[in-house]
Amino acid sequence: MAKYVYGKNVVNNLLRGSGEIVNLYVLEGRNGSEIERMAQQRRINIRQVSRKYLDKLVDGNHQGYVAEIKEYRTYDIDEIIEAVPEGKLPLIVALDGIQDPHNLGAVLRTMSCVGGDGVIIEKDRSVSLNGTVAKVSVGAIDTIKVAQVTNLAQTLRYLKEKGYWVVGTDMTDAVDYRRPRYDVPIVLVIGAEGSGMRRLTSQICDYKIKLPMEGDLGSLNASVACGIILYQIYSQRSPLD
Amino acid sequence: MAKYVYGKNVVNNLLRGSGEIVNLYVLEGRNGSEIERMAQQRRINIRQVSRKYLDKLVDGNHQGYVAEIKEYRTYDIDEIIEAVPEGKLPLIVALDGIQDPHNLGAVLRTMSCVGGDGVIIEKDRSVSLNGTVAKVSVGAIDTIKVAQVTNLAQTLRYLKEKGYWVVGTDMTDAVDYRRPRYDVPIVLVIGAEGSGMRRLTSQICDYKIKLPMEGDLGSLNASVACGIILYQIYSQRSPLD
Repeated sequence: MAKYVYGKNVVNNLLRGSGEIVNLYVLEGRNGSEIERMAQQRRINIRQVSRKYLDKLVDGNHQGYVAEIKEYRTYDIDEIIEAVPEGKLPLIVALDGIQDPHNLGAVLRTMSCVGGDGVIIEKDRSVSLNGTVAKVSVGAIDTIKVAQVTNLAQTLRYLKEKGYWVVGTDMTDAVDYRRPRYDVPIVLVIGAEGSGMRRLTSQICDYKIKLPMEGDLGSLNASVACGIILYQIYSQRSPLD
Repeated sequence: MAKYVYGKNVVNNLLRGSGEIVNLYVLEGRNGSEIERMAQQRRINIRQVSRKYLDKLVDGNHQGYVAEIKEYRTYDIDEIIEAVPEGKLPLIVALDGIQDPHNLGAVLRTMSCVGGDGVIIEKDRSVSLNGTVAKVSVGAIDTIKVAQVTNLAQTLRYLKEKGYWVVGTDMTDAVDYRRPRYDVPIVLVIGAEGSGMRRLTSQICDYKIKLPMEGDLGSLNASVACGIILYQIYSQRSPLD
């Protein structure tokens, strides 16, 4: 879905960041501006249009610059739950504050490969769906449903009521990830890079699992850890003959 | 280890890329140049020094700009083999053309967590050790030995002679990754993002494994796939009681 944002500063910041601009509309006669130079460098499609054209695109003071950006759809948690096919064991991932778009993109990709049902991220505490996430997900951003919730703890409690088991990941007070039986509806909680799960999130978990580990590093990349656990769950649910 | 590179274009490109500059030495009086502006933005330590100072640092036409960069040590394949502790089952990863520094960094990090012995990359066909790799590896770049070889096929054949099993990853002509017994010296070959293993590499493999998969995506992120298989090997070698 396309969405328009406008104004010199907004477009400028978008160009400096990782925002994915589909088209850039510039008021005719504005040639040679810094914004145009950056857009050219990033090989963005630039269209010189009339003031009337811009005024029709957006309802606000565009200052001669309107960017068409790609917007990624998000879902309610109920939409995710209800879309789980009849007879399938549900599998949801909740990210407790993941900041790196590479990690979110890779988690979406893995979820697509294990037939997962949805990913929960928290507004303000997680990276949002953007162009980098889309690129790293190689398309999974369009097939795996993402819910952006305001309060992760509340959402996890709601999922418990709905019959889900909340499985956390932690190094302390946790069992080897190969021990539990995963033949129940599961929401797997992955902690933030560096800091892990918050205490409140941790307290809601029905149980916590850990990956055995050598050396002093003490943790894996968040999307790699998530991938290993998701494949353990997926493997256990579809055993070899 | 520190290393000096010099010249206006070299330093300029380094600043625009992901090169890790420790210190930037600039000929005094060169204030306000584009290079200095970029270095300031990236919070690099800039030192204004005399021409005599620069001439001592490097032996060449520095044009007033010398950058001190961090250099990461690489190893010969024999150094990796010989460093495997007595009685330990060796585990090496060979990357057949990985381009993304995030993937290489994450592979190094996972290798550290499973007590792996080394990673092989190919000169010219893989990303080299750089600042991004170091950052994503969270220190594993200094503990996991990396060999940068000119001919991967030749190196894999050499490892076979040394008693290693070459285990490829592929979607065709491959067994489920849970089937093989991994209680032998292993070099696990991971294909490039997108294109997978080259045919020549594939032909050298003793056998190939695949990850079961739902949906249409057809592949996982390279570092995630590598992590899942490494943990399968590691788990099988240290079974639960």
